[in-house]
Amino acid sequence: MSNSGAALTVYGMSTSGNCHKVRLLLEQLGTRYDWCEVDSAGGQTRTPEFLAMNPNGKVPLVRRNDGRVLTESNAILFWLAEGTPFLPVDGWQRAQALSWMFFEQYSHEPYIAVARFICGWTPADSPRRTDLPRLRERGHEALSVMEQHLAAHDWFTGPHYGIADIALYAYTSVAEDGGLVLSAYPALQRWLQRVHEQPGFVSMAPPAAEVQARFIASR
Amino acid sequence: MSNSGAALTVYGMSTSGNCHKVRLLLEQLGTRYDWCEVDSAGGQTRTPEFLAMNPNGKVPLVRRNDGRVLTESNAILFWLAEGTPFLPVDGWQRAQALSWMFFEQYSHEPYIAVARFICGWTPADSPRRTDLPRLRERGHEALSVMEQHLAAHDWFTGPHYGIADIALYAYTSVAEDGGLVLSAYPALQRWLQRVHEQPGFVSMAPPAAEVQARFIASR
Repeated sequence: MSNSGAALTVYGMSTSGNCHKVRLLLEQLGTRYDWCEVDSAGGQTRTPEFLAMNPNGKVPLVRRNDGRVLTESNAILFWLAEGTPFLPVDGWQRAQALSWMFFEQYSHEPYIAVARFICGWTPADSPRRTDLPRLRERGHEALSVMEQHLAAHDWFTGPHYGIADIALYAYTSVAEDGGLVLSAYPALQRWLQRVHEQPGFVSMAPPAAEVQARFIASR
Repeated sequence: MSNSGAALTVYGMSTSGNCHKVRLLLEQLGTRYDWCEVDSAGGQTRTPEFLAMNPNGKVPLVRRNDGRVLTESNAILFWLAEGTPFLPVDGWQRAQALSWMFFEQYSHEPYIAVARFICGWTPADSPRRTDLPRLRERGHEALSVMEQHLAAHDWFTGPHYGIADIALYAYTSVAEDGGLVLSAYPALQRWLQRVHEQPGFVSMAPPAAEVQARFIASR
């Protein structure tokens, strides 16, 4: 962790989509922040020190320099985006952004991110691998809902890129790591390309070589 | 469905906690609305007509009389509560409310609501019942996080009852239907009582007798 005197510290695992959401928005906002790497897959969110900050034992978490903390990736996006072009002012549009972000956490991430985690971070003989067919099936249902929206709209909320796009981008962009092939979703693929072309875009950190080898072996 | 000319129609299943959230807030706001009962457990969210409104096939959903729709229970709460005492004005407090609502949808509802669904709405020999021990274990983890907060705070966001309380109340209040006994959580039990005492409070509709019999048989 650097100690630059920034007003905000992000605790996160760089190869986690939920954590990358926060980094991507902060980079696009040009906000100064410190990043404290936390190996969630290795148990570092379950230490007494971490649980004192977040009893739910999850990253990302942001800590202000007065000690106050905020958890849950999409709540962090909403807080950071307030008053910026990444969050509409209109109440109905804000609610639509939230609707997509709750969709992401309930109907998308638990399948697409979990399939990726099992493929990359569990051994080849893990009993959790028997969950993969069901996770992939439900993940494709979520991708189909996104495809239907993107066939008629450029972005997930109103006429501009914003926090709903960031929330959905994170794990969609790495869905193939978990064995969810994106070739059946042409509108979604064009949207991913539009996200890549946004000013200040940064890619998620690649996982370690052995994790990438397990992604390939799991296909 | 009544057709009172109200500006808002809620599509929901009355015995669903996610749907009850919306009814509870609307009653407490004193807002006029129509309620269209949708038997989600019986497949009515998977008809072509319903999927045209919500491709994700879930209730609750609100429809304005100009035809525009909003999905996801907690996004609906946020939209309805804007400008009312149920949602703080301060950006940090709003983000804390959202953080608890994302916690509810990711770390609470998928265990506590799903355990209740399996106990009440699947047959005694359903293979899904093998999931119950794991669901209850994770559900208790969520209740413990709530208990830790409530040991030091009356409400989930700031000094007043609000939408984070409504979101967490819905399935916590019926956790015992899914076999999650609340006796180990005294602060949480006092909070449930405080919620019951709020002006305009309405209880969730009781499920059919055969569903209640299955709750009891599943303990």
